[in-house]
Amino acid sequence: MNKALNIHKKLKGKIEIHPKIKVSKNNLKLIYTPGVAEVAKEIAKNPKNSYKYTGRGNNVAIITDGSRTLGAGDTVPEASLPVMEGKAMFLKLLGGVDAYPLCLNTKSKEEIIKTIEIISPNFAAFNLEDVKAPKSLEIMEKINQKGFIIFHDDEQGVAIVVLAAIFNALKVVGKKLDKAKICIAGAGSAGYGIFKILNFAGAKNIIVFDAKGIIFRGRKGDNKYLQEIASSTNRKNLKGGKDEAVLGCDVFIGVSGVGDLINSSNIGVMAKNPIIFAISNPSPEIIPAEIEKTTRKYVFASGRPDFKNQINNIVVFPGVFRGILDYRKKINLALEFKISKSIAGLIKKPSKNNIIPNPFDKRLVGAITNCIKNFKKN
Amino acid sequence: MNKALNIHKKLKGKIEIHPKIKVSKNNLKLIYTPGVAEVAKEIAKNPKNSYKYTGRGNNVAIITDGSRTLGAGDTVPEASLPVMEGKAMFLKLLGGVDAYPLCLNTKSKEEIIKTIEIISPNFAAFNLEDVKAPKSLEIMEKINQKGFIIFHDDEQGVAIVVLAAIFNALKVVGKKLDKAKICIAGAGSAGYGIFKILNFAGAKNIIVFDAKGIIFRGRKGDNKYLQEIASSTNRKNLKGGKDEAVLGCDVFIGVSGVGDLINSSNIGVMAKNPIIFAISNPSPEIIPAEIEKTTRKYVFASGRPDFKNQINNIVVFPGVFRGILDYRKKINLALEFKISKSIAGLIKKPSKNNIIPNPFDKRLVGAITNCIKNFKKN
Repeated sequence: MNKALNIHKKLKGKIEIHPKIKVSKNNLKLIYTPGVAEVAKEIAKNPKNSYKYTGRGNNVAIITDGSRTLGAGDTVPEASLPVMEGKAMFLKLLGGVDAYPLCLNTKSKEEIIKTIEIISPNFAAFNLEDVKAPKSLEIMEKINQKGFIIFHDDEQGVAIVVLAAIFNALKVVGKKLDKAKICIAGAGSAGYGIFKILNFAGAKNIIVFDAKGIIFRGRKGDNKYLQEIASSTNRKNLKGGKDEAVLGCDVFIGVSGVGDLINSSNIGVMAKNPIIFAISNPSPEIIPAEIEKTTRKYVFASGRPDFKNQINNIVVFPGVFRGILDYRKKINLALEFKISKSIAGLIKKPSKNNIIPNPFDKRLVGAITNCIKNFKKN
Repeated sequence: MNKALNIHKKLKGKIEIHPKIKVSKNNLKLIYTPGVAEVAKEIAKNPKNSYKYTGRGNNVAIITDGSRTLGAGDTVPEASLPVMEGKAMFLKLLGGVDAYPLCLNTKSKEEIIKTIEIISPNFAAFNLEDVKAPKSLEIMEKINQKGFIIFHDDEQGVAIVVLAAIFNALKVVGKKLDKAKICIAGAGSAGYGIFKILNFAGAKNIIVFDAKGIIFRGRKGDNKYLQEIASSTNRKNLKGGKDEAVLGCDVFIGVSGVGDLINSSNIGVMAKNPIIFAISNPSPEIIPAEIEKTTRKYVFASGRPDFKNQINNIVVFPGVFRGILDYRKKINLALEFKISKSIAGLIKKPSKNNIIPNPFDKRLVGAITNCIKNFKKN
């Protein structure tokens, strides 16, 4: 992967600031002093005028503390910067959104929340990114309570794209969501988000496990989010580890952050025609070569671009933020569900190697923003 | 000034985020997942690697709390955003710097300092802007103590450009800095910065007044910055108002924020061939038509582009930040002085209407960055 280092070293940053206007002697006094003072006065009268006269309405801050940096784990915030820059790049390229990476030099939940409030005058919305759970989920709750628009890509973005892929994968293998047994590996932001959306979508047989094993009612030391998972999954209140969890499952969804978490023996005890989503990045929970030691009848997807079926939130976040900015709506579970349906629907004839649109599919942003546009708040 | 509102409404922001690379199927896995994980790991090993692999080394945050917004005074932070966007635009256009406006939703000195620390992983330097004195000066002290590179454009930028203009204006009228009597109207960030640099440059007869009148030793209620001014100016410890302050002055420097502060009678009691810098924006302390009621022999400059001799920090900040980023040096008084000399030297034959280079003079950035490059720290 020296190639990745080299390209980053050469680029020195994947985004830059770009003036939107050509400056001339004629417009200088309008866009700079003294003319800009009139604009400042208009906004001073009503802060909402900042949406009218500045870039605020198209500005998103990408917030992280580096506590769950892609591929690097709990790191210094600086380590997240290249990831955030990539996100900002695609938000612009695919969604036309101006996103500002802000890696925060604090691991404190309170300070992260406070910082979001303090920098809020420049932004129309926030994206929370690469923050460890449950801190990430707690921050989401608080920031939503305070009335800001925030989207949690690791939770909501992943959930939307996973459900879309499940809709199509189930069609390929001829199974139904409400009958399928689904195992989720990982109960961080992504695992929690996927559990929530599957539950909302009508899945009735979900089992979730994390590093401590299967999540069950009464498990000691679990935070409120894990308890919430326990209360709506694992009907028989099973205990055990991954081997017990995958037993008889129709769908495996890996968001554990652990490469090679499962192997061909685990696949062997799943139901026939298994659906296997090994989404962890950069190292998936299992790769097709390993699966094929056991069976050739399966549907596979990962988060990487070098296998077929890339389940990456890049399919979702450009359209979601475009819609959030255009219609100033928060994204709740019901809206997530609609977006998933709509994304799935872009694949007219799902097949083993084609269950999810590729990130550059030009219909994606329109499909997602339409969902947001037409969504009636309850 | 409806024209200014219209152009801002049409633009909806003067800057945008721009990808620095064309994305293809080939480079996607290098600049995004999984390749970017290698970069994150390299930076996790040493946060300084963020300068090597991301845009950090070219990133500046423009920080304000909107407590001294151009033309609008102490406002909501949002009101400063169009001003900050203008600044960011010129930092890119003239200095190649990527500057991110951040208007903070707090007026608390402690919270501003804390926010700068928290967002520091994304930036190589900071610009403090449109913050009321003495809060601005206190923030500068603290942030410098903490080892961050910060430039205070309202203080240091103004001081540099004013001294450069004074060098040339004194040549035009045939006077010497150490003999000149200089009056500064205003003792905020700009007034304080100008006092400091004039003192450093060898001016020996300075008098400063603010809304309370002439600053003298023992004046009640003065903060430590005003006391510092009192201790090195106003040799005779005069008291009084603007009428007393301008008496016999060779140079008047208006940074009061008050339009039409002085009139032709005040000009009448100045020394012969007065130098009048009415720098306040958007409304200068006096305009040429008013001066000419008294005399036609004078040198005038203002902060606006619609008179001759624009003394605006736009002459300074693009080059200063280019140099700060290229050589990672702090800007102290001795370096400010060198930069002033160098800017003044760009005008080979100073004349009444030509004492300062215009902001688009292509030699400016090179002249300033050279000063910074060659400056030896004490």
